[in-house]
Amino acid sequence: MSHPNYSIRTVEWKNDHLVLLDQRHLPHAEKYMDLYSAEDTAEAIRNRIVRGAPAMGLAAAYGMVMAARKCYKQYPHDWRLRVEAEKKALAEARPTAVNIQWALDLLSQHLDQVEGDPIPSVLALAKQLHEDDISGNIRMATLGSTLLEANSTVLTHGNGGALACGGYGTALGVVRTAFSTGKLQQVYVNESRPLWQGSRLTTWELMKDSIPFQVLADGAAAHLMAQNKVNIVLVGAECVAANGDIAGKIGTYQLAISARFHNVKLVVVAPTSSFSRKFTTGAMIPLEERPIEELISMGTQRITVQHADAWNPAFDVTPAHLIDAIVTEKGIIEQPDASKISALLG
Amino acid sequence: MSHPNYSIRTVEWKNDHLVLLDQRHLPHAEKYMDLYSAEDTAEAIRNRIVRGAPAMGLAAAYGMVMAARKCYKQYPHDWRLRVEAEKKALAEARPTAVNIQWALDLLSQHLDQVEGDPIPSVLALAKQLHEDDISGNIRMATLGSTLLEANSTVLTHGNGGALACGGYGTALGVVRTAFSTGKLQQVYVNESRPLWQGSRLTTWELMKDSIPFQVLADGAAAHLMAQNKVNIVLVGAECVAANGDIAGKIGTYQLAISARFHNVKLVVVAPTSSFSRKFTTGAMIPLEERPIEELISMGTQRITVQHADAWNPAFDVTPAHLIDAIVTEKGIIEQPDASKISALLG
Repeated sequence: MSHPNYSIRTVEWKNDHLVLLDQRHLPHAEKYMDLYSAEDTAEAIRNRIVRGAPAMGLAAAYGMVMAARKCYKQYPHDWRLRVEAEKKALAEARPTAVNIQWALDLLSQHLDQVEGDPIPSVLALAKQLHEDDISGNIRMATLGSTLLEANSTVLTHGNGGALACGGYGTALGVVRTAFSTGKLQQVYVNESRPLWQGSRLTTWELMKDSIPFQVLADGAAAHLMAQNKVNIVLVGAECVAANGDIAGKIGTYQLAISARFHNVKLVVVAPTSSFSRKFTTGAMIPLEERPIEELISMGTQRITVQHADAWNPAFDVTPAHLIDAIVTEKGIIEQPDASKISALLG
Repeated sequence: MSHPNYSIRTVEWKNDHLVLLDQRHLPHAEKYMDLYSAEDTAEAIRNRIVRGAPAMGLAAAYGMVMAARKCYKQYPHDWRLRVEAEKKALAEARPTAVNIQWALDLLSQHLDQVEGDPIPSVLALAKQLHEDDISGNIRMATLGSTLLEANSTVLTHGNGGALACGGYGTALGVVRTAFSTGKLQQVYVNESRPLWQGSRLTTWELMKDSIPFQVLADGAAAHLMAQNKVNIVLVGAECVAANGDIAGKIGTYQLAISARFHNVKLVVVAPTSSFSRKFTTGAMIPLEERPIEELISMGTQRITVQHADAWNPAFDVTPAHLIDAIVTEKGIIEQPDASKISALLG
């Protein structure tokens, strides 16, 4: 049997430019967008053509490659200064995902040191980050699946899939490996309002891999747990603070509370590129709020009364004490805290 | 200032028949449906033209009036037997709301005893139940609003409004009275997937009464509580078991867990017509599951991949120990349990 999951590439460098799978059209259409500049890449990140912290980090990395290329060719004498301006637009595209800043800083450091034409080496570095992300995902999946017992049922929230990463996935990477090794019975998929990452994206990935699943309303998760139907909750993260608090897709925190109430394990699957040393606790992580239209209408269809007000946070913070384990490509941190994380990051 | 809230009548007897506000079209259009038989009333309940436990109980009561009228005129000799058959269709229209059975039993008992033409007296009884429901709501609202402190913010789930009752509302009745007495700052409205009772119905009612509100995703409620933005959670119930467990709109249980986690009070507002002596605990209450289409599509718009499977429970059970108080028209039961409930019901 082939593994179609390996072929999902939401971010890809083709010849001389960046290609993004336009996730706004999923699961109905598989459209791709060609991008030739950092400005356009920043706009694509802002507009959620690409989402998921690791995938946005990689898109930003390729955006920096295109910024370096343009600036080096057009302004050979002060190209470094000009790249900094383009970097700023990329850095500000989405505030919560720490991977964007992580990727930009790595590429910036490289550009500061490189002599002569920076393009080949900065592209090579971006590609290396991409490959590392995929191999990191596979490593996390192998590690994470050891936390599942035979015949497990998994509950997921948001989309920690191949669509959120360079490929394979964080939370869904564990699901894939657990399924291929016969440990997984089925996945329960929180629809993940308001942007339906569960209904739209996770179902699309699971269907491609023939992994059995059922979608449920986010509010039904506790009811499912009360019936002992969930063995483990697996989620991704936008950012892991130095003390183990995480910023996750809105609804993650409520799910974590319900999981603890029912003694169901909550496991966060996140590469170390999503860890921040700067944010010592979750309270410091900037949490994006999104336009209220995402809540009060769907496409051209209005759901609520006209002129309704709404509150639309895109992320929430789950404190470390509600997290049973964080799976990274460098190892599993059980009952995460500042010292364990610091030891792992080295 | 007028009180438009008093004028919302989702169930109404006009001259010789039942008129229901067709809630499927709200908030976009205010359409009414005329019903002349028990069969059509049962179908209207089944199809969610009318919803909310007390409102469905009243619709069923008027349905019985029309059954008695038809059977008495067409089959004067064995009309009682024939009414029983029509009652069965009403009783089976929706399984979880205990008010339907409550109303049907009251009217049945009356019909068993009445001599001669049953129509005037059974109609008078149905109208009495309707009036009692409204006055009960107003009494609950007065009692319930004493639980709110000045400048309170309320979080609601589902729609315990005038649209769910004879008029005025259960949870939203308390909101109305608290607002009119200056105790309420604003309402946070859980959108209440999958059928959007919050986004569609609660917003419509609050807008009519100019009560300030914000809609949020159901998964965001815990995040809101973590920011100390919620003073009290008010919800209705489909059924209250003899031990104080309740069946509520799906998502109520998860909200109750989050409320307890944050030391936010959870108050259930339910008339004694929603109480069951037959169900000694919540585990005995039959919980309706609904078609998966409600989760995987919206109108003609599909949300998920094709052929997606889903799990769509309409209700869940919140155990009594997570409920701080149940407000009834006969008084408030704090920390509900079997003996307190039994004492209140008499």
